[in-house]
Amino acid sequence: MERMVSESESIQNHFNGEETMRPNILLFGDSITQESFRSGGWGASLADAYSRKADVVLRGYGGYNTRWALFLLHHLFPLGLTKPPVATTIFFGANDAALAGGTSERQHVPVEEYKENLRKIVRHLKECSPTMLIVLITPPPIDEEGRMEYARETYGEKAMTLPERTNETTGVYAKGCVELARELGVRSINLWSKMQETDGWQKKYLRDGLHLTAEGNAVVFEEVVKVFKEAWLDASEMPYDFPHHSEIDGKNPEKAFQQKCL
Amino acid sequence: MERMVSESESIQNHFNGEETMRPNILLFGDSITQESFRSGGWGASLADAYSRKADVVLRGYGGYNTRWALFLLHHLFPLGLTKPPVATTIFFGANDAALAGGTSERQHVPVEEYKENLRKIVRHLKECSPTMLIVLITPPPIDEEGRMEYARETYGEKAMTLPERTNETTGVYAKGCVELARELGVRSINLWSKMQETDGWQKKYLRDGLHLTAEGNAVVFEEVVKVFKEAWLDASEMPYDFPHHSEIDGKNPEKAFQQKCL
Repeated sequence: MERMVSESESIQNHFNGEETMRPNILLFGDSITQESFRSGGWGASLADAYSRKADVVLRGYGGYNTRWALFLLHHLFPLGLTKPPVATTIFFGANDAALAGGTSERQHVPVEEYKENLRKIVRHLKECSPTMLIVLITPPPIDEEGRMEYARETYGEKAMTLPERTNETTGVYAKGCVELARELGVRSINLWSKMQETDGWQKKYLRDGLHLTAEGNAVVFEEVVKVFKEAWLDASEMPYDFPHHSEIDGKNPEKAFQQKCL
Repeated sequence: MERMVSESESIQNHFNGEETMRPNILLFGDSITQESFRSGGWGASLADAYSRKADVVLRGYGGYNTRWALFLLHHLFPLGLTKPPVATTIFFGANDAALAGGTSERQHVPVEEYKENLRKIVRHLKECSPTMLIVLITPPPIDEEGRMEYARETYGEKAMTLPERTNETTGVYAKGCVELARELGVRSINLWSKMQETDGWQKKYLRDGLHLTAEGNAVVFEEVVKVFKEAWLDASEMPYDFPHHSEIDGKNPEKAFQQKCL
């Protein structure tokens, strides 16, 4: 209960201060985050949903695993920041789960280290801001057949004879991610499980067996919004930074701006 | 020539400093800016194009005209900002050009005042940062028939019998905007003219006679990118904030991060 109060106070402070009128929501992750501002992308949808209320800051690094993400941590989230993000999504694992011995071995990180790296990221963010809303997102499932097709189409017949990622292995990382979130008391989205609840998820949600279609992006968007709402970051309850145009009297516009701008 | 040098130095400073590693590109405007992060929107496309190189900051205020925008100016662009945007698009006029005496009269601003307000905005931005790349965008053309259809569909037969905006009047504002940009020595995009070069622009680019379709958004995106490139803000020439994953040695990742992160 104590935590809820401090979270709610934190967001109030963000709305009252001038410098901090619009809180930042930061998206930290790999290519699935980096691509999230393409047409129909979950990041752009989030920016639209929080339009005039919060800024969505894109920090996606295609190809990165959690081991490499650690190098960026203090640069993206320096301690003592006057305006740390009010919320951060941490969305890694798709590359960590590349198979040791496979063609993407370079990106592989053992699951125990993956969990340890995520723990370091969460701890650092809590140190940056004890009230930050932190959401861990698991990697999406893998459509092994789709991944193979993509490799054949892109690199020819000899491209990939053995899978570089399997759905089962990625599932182990997803489980580890959710367990860690529970242990650390932060929220999580089990995208790996969620997507597999829908028939035909392989082609419906994944465009190359790994990256998301527009429909897959919509799932991430809906899940993130749901978790944000369940916490306290509900766009519909957040005030506009400046008056809605319908509140402005054409003959006496000063009035609408008095509280915030004069 | 002197101005070119200082602009280029400015962006270099943005890349060297840690705090200012990623420059901000700010989009200031009315609903056509506010909506620009919807699926296929020009703002989201810009954020994607400058991904890992610059942050696109959305400051769109649906329904606003330049008179009301002035109230926000010192709040959105306070003087003495340590990191002012390196580029700002100013995209107003669609509401200013609402007809006096029409149903949207409340939003109407006479064209001379529209120009004067734009002048104040540009002057203030130059005071914020003399090297800021400023791009004025004219309102898009009006499809009067499409606007009428939209009103009938939304509010019924009696909704709108006289046009609240005409293409001719909006054209006067577009002309004023371009003239002012020339006078002030800033860049401009004549969207009103550009869109009308294409047959069927009425339905192709406008979804309700005023706001943009995905194809209309693509035109704005292309024009903005073109002007940014012609100036100096070319994404393909800007460095990534952190190493591309292919530059990272799986066995010795420190090396790739040495220059920027250790």
